[in-house]
Amino acid sequence: MNEPYVIGIDVGGTNTEFGIVDRMGKILDRGDKIATLAYTSGKDYVNDLGNAVNKLIAKYDLKDKIKGIGMGVPNGNMNEGVVEKAVNIPWAQERVPLVKMMNRITGLPCKLTNDANAAALGEMAYGAAKGLKDFIVVTLGTGVGSGIVSNGQLVVGHDGFAGELGHVIVVRENGRVCGCGRSGCLETYTSATGVARTAREFLLTQPQRESVLREIQHRPVTSLDVYEAAKKGDSLAIEIFDFTGRILGEAFCNFIAFSSPKAIILFGGLTESGDFFVNSLKKAIDENICFVYKGKTEILISTLNGAKAAILGASALAWE
Amino acid sequence: MNEPYVIGIDVGGTNTEFGIVDRMGKILDRGDKIATLAYTSGKDYVNDLGNAVNKLIAKYDLKDKIKGIGMGVPNGNMNEGVVEKAVNIPWAQERVPLVKMMNRITGLPCKLTNDANAAALGEMAYGAAKGLKDFIVVTLGTGVGSGIVSNGQLVVGHDGFAGELGHVIVVRENGRVCGCGRSGCLETYTSATGVARTAREFLLTQPQRESVLREIQHRPVTSLDVYEAAKKGDSLAIEIFDFTGRILGEAFCNFIAFSSPKAIILFGGLTESGDFFVNSLKKAIDENICFVYKGKTEILISTLNGAKAAILGASALAWE
Repeated sequence: MNEPYVIGIDVGGTNTEFGIVDRMGKILDRGDKIATLAYTSGKDYVNDLGNAVNKLIAKYDLKDKIKGIGMGVPNGNMNEGVVEKAVNIPWAQERVPLVKMMNRITGLPCKLTNDANAAALGEMAYGAAKGLKDFIVVTLGTGVGSGIVSNGQLVVGHDGFAGELGHVIVVRENGRVCGCGRSGCLETYTSATGVARTAREFLLTQPQRESVLREIQHRPVTSLDVYEAAKKGDSLAIEIFDFTGRILGEAFCNFIAFSSPKAIILFGGLTESGDFFVNSLKKAIDENICFVYKGKTEILISTLNGAKAAILGASALAWE
Repeated sequence: MNEPYVIGIDVGGTNTEFGIVDRMGKILDRGDKIATLAYTSGKDYVNDLGNAVNKLIAKYDLKDKIKGIGMGVPNGNMNEGVVEKAVNIPWAQERVPLVKMMNRITGLPCKLTNDANAAALGEMAYGAAKGLKDFIVVTLGTGVGSGIVSNGQLVVGHDGFAGELGHVIVVRENGRVCGCGRSGCLETYTSATGVARTAREFLLTQPQRESVLREIQHRPVTSLDVYEAAKKGDSLAIEIFDFTGRILGEAFCNFIAFSSPKAIILFGGLTESGDFFVNSLKKAIDENICFVYKGKTEILISTLNGAKAAILGASALAWE
């Protein structure tokens, strides 16, 4: 069979973006964005998306050259091919059978998974995990997500929802309140939002410390502000990232005891500040790792970062 | 091919036991025990073991009916078929290529894994995990071990050492010192040894509390003492198990976020006291689990417990 292309679709919280991707991870062309939030009905959304995909394929007359469609969807359930309870997407509150619906419109085999799993498959197909069979991708964005690969396969669990490592509890007492309703989850400390929380906390609890972050007055401090401040050598900002890296590193030691990955790959917006926390992350691993695993797991930063990464990640699912 | 039998070998810290096992998990017969600790050289040990296995097979004239040999070995590395640095076995300090050596003597395909992985395969082949593709076996004995199965496959990691969940750190500050050289590991709280430590700690820090455990004077309190006391209704003993169950349940919530298992199966000596801690374990899970996983993971007690379980577990590897 001569099917050298797949379609990768990234259902983002704002826009849905998609493209035709080849085996090397090159994006041949992208279709018109779909505004994810402009829809209230899953049916209308999938209709427009499916037709846009058909249009892009027709443009290149590639109907017979496409192996399938891979979709990365927040809260997407790989086992069942559905999305439901995706908190930020109005039409995805009820159960929407995306895979079945897209297959009907495009006539192509279709799979979906959540964004972090898609990122993991993308790394394995085209990125930093090429050739690896055991690794974890940890996404550090607004939240913290993860895609775990063991023996070359995604760990999806009995219900398709495995790999919520952002919701591992890392602080048992007086932990930060998390959106999931509990306290002390990893994502409350090591997401972009978590870094901003740390900044506010440090500024409050260390009133004597000077910091350029104090100049930000009429809006909340963001992780980007902390990054800019750290670049200027601001010692409080640097400590904020040290703290972030240490908590992440301690958590990684427990992840490593679980699946003994060859690498943990960092993905997502916060990795742009990587220079400022990767050292403390590695130090925390070195100081806390069980001797069995000492020095064995590499910490890598995704080479797929950027606008195309999510499309590539989703597309990788279609090669499986 | 008509190969209805396998050989299961449990390399225990005291004795090595083995038997011929059929597809239903019935042990046709067992060979003579080998005293694991009577040897200083790996070569001598494997020679005697291999010959004993050959003798048992010859007794039933089954040479052509045996599919292979599975071995459960402390610190055994499945990927490489070797054992090394098994702390309690004198001949297994240096790297011993058990698989290659046993294959040479018996002429049979041979595999090995560590004891907890063997237990997981045993549960999947003959026990509580029959028909499950995603589950975790947690062994609660002198230490705490684990065998993780995802999508029907053992999670062994890039180096063969995945699944050391006894060495997940659960107490970050002032945690108990662990044999691995760190502090706060799960096994320091929820192994049989951990229960005994909790008993000593509770007796010391609550001097006003009455307990039949105080009658034990001239030797250290053991987990079995705590069990006997709990059966008599001793409230301190019951609290010790409550405490154990709670720590285990909190840890399980993090494990569930990793691989979303359909079941976590408890295996090993401490499960005999299960009546006294499984309720608090389940309660801790219920109170601490992320909503995504709520009510989805069963807590089961191994149905393979007892003297034969380790042989069965090891034998399951040979069917793979």
